[in-house]
Amino acid sequence: MTRALIFGTGSIGIMCAMILHRASVKVTCVCRSNYAEVKKRGFNVESTIFGKETFRTSIVRLVSEAINDDQSFDFVIVATKSLPNTSDGIISAISPAMKDKKTALVLMQNGIGIEEVYHKAFPGNVILSAVVYMPTVETEPGVVFHQEIEIIHVGTYPSQSDASARELADKFVQVVAKGGGTAVAHEDVQGERWKKLVANAAWNPVCALTRCTDLQFLKTSDYSRGFVREAMMEVVEVAAAMGYEEHVGLDTVQMHMNRAESRNSPGVRPSMMMDMSMGRRMEVQTVIGEVVRLGHNHKVSIPRLEALHVLLVGLDWALDDATSKQGIR
Amino acid sequence: MTRALIFGTGSIGIMCAMILHRASVKVTCVCRSNYAEVKKRGFNVESTIFGKETFRTSIVRLVSEAINDDQSFDFVIVATKSLPNTSDGIISAISPAMKDKKTALVLMQNGIGIEEVYHKAFPGNVILSAVVYMPTVETEPGVVFHQEIEIIHVGTYPSQSDASARELADKFVQVVAKGGGTAVAHEDVQGERWKKLVANAAWNPVCALTRCTDLQFLKTSDYSRGFVREAMMEVVEVAAAMGYEEHVGLDTVQMHMNRAESRNSPGVRPSMMMDMSMGRRMEVQTVIGEVVRLGHNHKVSIPRLEALHVLLVGLDWALDDATSKQGIR
Repeated sequence: MTRALIFGTGSIGIMCAMILHRASVKVTCVCRSNYAEVKKRGFNVESTIFGKETFRTSIVRLVSEAINDDQSFDFVIVATKSLPNTSDGIISAISPAMKDKKTALVLMQNGIGIEEVYHKAFPGNVILSAVVYMPTVETEPGVVFHQEIEIIHVGTYPSQSDASARELADKFVQVVAKGGGTAVAHEDVQGERWKKLVANAAWNPVCALTRCTDLQFLKTSDYSRGFVREAMMEVVEVAAAMGYEEHVGLDTVQMHMNRAESRNSPGVRPSMMMDMSMGRRMEVQTVIGEVVRLGHNHKVSIPRLEALHVLLVGLDWALDDATSKQGIR
Repeated sequence: MTRALIFGTGSIGIMCAMILHRASVKVTCVCRSNYAEVKKRGFNVESTIFGKETFRTSIVRLVSEAINDDQSFDFVIVATKSLPNTSDGIISAISPAMKDKKTALVLMQNGIGIEEVYHKAFPGNVILSAVVYMPTVETEPGVVFHQEIEIIHVGTYPSQSDASARELADKFVQVVAKGGGTAVAHEDVQGERWKKLVANAAWNPVCALTRCTDLQFLKTSDYSRGFVREAMMEVVEVAAAMGYEEHVGLDTVQMHMNRAESRNSPGVRPSMMMDMSMGRRMEVQTVIGEVVRLGHNHKVSIPRLEALHVLLVGLDWALDDATSKQGIR
């Protein structure tokens, strides 16, 4: 029997739990803030693709409660936000579950540059990097609404890995398929990270800073569409400098622009905008900071990303300052 | 006896009323939202430069109540915010007081490109353009706190005007001096507008978007100082393209940066940041939109100002949308 531990049961963690549960995987979820609610009523998903489902998995408050000397996990799935200084805490929290070298770590997080710290912490384990398209909101603790699309791109980290690592990526794809989901294995999944980042590095900061949804922002002025396009093109240029020019290009930008422009009103509130409106810290570093750093290193001209980055760092600081002063709006 | 009508009794209008009142000018203030409070307790100023003062002037709700067939105003002073589509309303409101061609209109507003619409509406009257340095907050209706600096730069609009127009500018300077204030007449006051705009076009959008004071923003990252400097330099480049390279330059940028860096904690909340936090519309067009338009027309590279502008337009739209939905934070 396949066993999986899910660390981080926000909306992506819950969607993943549902798919694996449907695949008859023995799933254990680490529930931190939502333990009591999930204990009482299980997980609840309402999806335009998967339908309505209430399900229960083993739940624990701490990873140590899920450890059994006789059995190890096939997959430890991290589906938390990636904030600065949180990876140390995550690593120390999940390490009891990573003892068996056959256990693969699956990172379901946004942005780029997220894997290296885990690779260093668990050098003997296979690391799978996953790019998830699953637009969701957690409407109440343990309750998720999902729509539009579901696909998980996955690959080994680093991309040059041995056959046994690739087999684990393939096994993960098969398990997701068995659960009714869609997963695709890639030789180098970083190309998929860049493809998603073309949209995320532009829309997340723009919407967090302006408090407009993507569709609203496009309508606020004659310049807004061109600005977003150009910011996305800057991400494409950095990706090209990193060797991913075959994965992302003008067509990627066009696809992401079309996606935003064809939305129903009022459009989408990206995750950073949600975080901003709740007074929570945002994934600044992995979603835009790392792109800016790589752009500088490779001497790519990225004035729009630089502007978005410096403003977002300021806003993130102010949100934290307001939170620490209990002055959330 | 010199007579002055002040339209717009926010903090700048009240400071101006105090100085003219001290100069024994017969001042009439048009009080709109704060009429009842001012009627009851007069105007109150607490200033680190002028000290504490409570004073009363004639107050009216409408300009028409201040019109007297025997006497006209020497100065009609507009000290409102300059928002899109408000100038028509201001022009129609003040026009009863502009009937006498000897009446000069004094525009005490931020930004650039603010005068032409008034010049067209009152072609027979002298237009004086004023750049005001008077950091103030209106803490309650009719109550103002002022600190740090007070100076009014003034000149005719257009700058090429006849001797009689220049005499009115000089007369205004003398009246301010008699009231204990500081005013300086300029051959071409637009140079002073650009000088102030170097700071305003950068700090106002940055602080409104990030919710940081100027000093806080400078500390949020290693890039913030460079970003603000470069944005200010873009304003300098546009000013140079407009022929004001002798008025503003690297030294202007340095002066404004020094001013921000030497502030006491927590720093200053620029007017747009105050407006944003109150859910009010911001002076987007005159403070940055016009700079961007002129930059485009003169083919100046202004990527940072373009980014700030498009984001600010989005934020301004969202504030208006929130206000119109009664959803102010």
